[in-house]
Amino acid sequence: MLAGGVFPAACPSRVLLDHVTSKWGVLVLVSLVDGPQRWSDLRRRAQGVSEKMLAQTLKTLEADGLVLRDQKPVMPPHVDYRLTPLGEELAAVLVPLLRWVGQNADAVITPTAPTGSR
Amino acid sequence: MLAGGVFPAACPSRVLLDHVTSKWGVLVLVSLVDGPQRWSDLRRRAQGVSEKMLAQTLKTLEADGLVLRDQKPVMPPHVDYRLTPLGEELAAVLVPLLRWVGQNADAVITPTAPTGSR
Repeated sequence: MLAGGVFPAACPSRVLLDHVTSKWGVLVLVSLVDGPQRWSDLRRRAQGVSEKMLAQTLKTLEADGLVLRDQKPVMPPHVDYRLTPLGEELAAVLVPLLRWVGQNADAVITPTAPTGSR
Repeated sequence: MLAGGVFPAACPSRVLLDHVTSKWGVLVLVSLVDGPQRWSDLRRRAQGVSEKMLAQTLKTLEADGLVLRDQKPVMPPHVDYRLTPLGEELAAVLVPLLRWVGQNADAVITPTAPTGSR
């Protein structure tokens, strides 16, 4: 499949892999699978993301051509974020990963610190 | 699919997602798809990984039950790393992601700085 060394260092694949496997990158892309979302939707769906990290993540995904910022010419301004066709392709391979993570996390991750428990 | 907020913050899914989408986590897991590998194989396949990061990544993946450290009772010591059945499940959903990244990186990532060009 990915013969030899997975990806050579210093090739564009490594950069793109970093973008699409960043925590917020994954969560934002998968949040958009259900359709266009507003900033506040994304803040709610990618729970825990800061304003700054969301802005930065969207900027990277836009620059990569994976997410489209769609500003409607209305007053007050209405901005949607949506997947581009390329972003939809990527989301299609990310969804099985997130589904697997969701199904297996409880079994895999053993809470060690008493955070969140009593 | 992942209804509502993708994953709530502070749930084990987020922790596992961090582990499996860490740059080296992905590359190590996918490197093991072809079969058991020695430390030196992994260093070569996950090109650019430092000794420290590889050790840390393997430790996390072992603790998660995704990778097995197999020390053969021979002299000199021979240590293999291999995917567990759970790790194989995960690799099966990671491979399509890496394949997509490999196929699309050149189109997506536009080199901006003159690194590597003349």
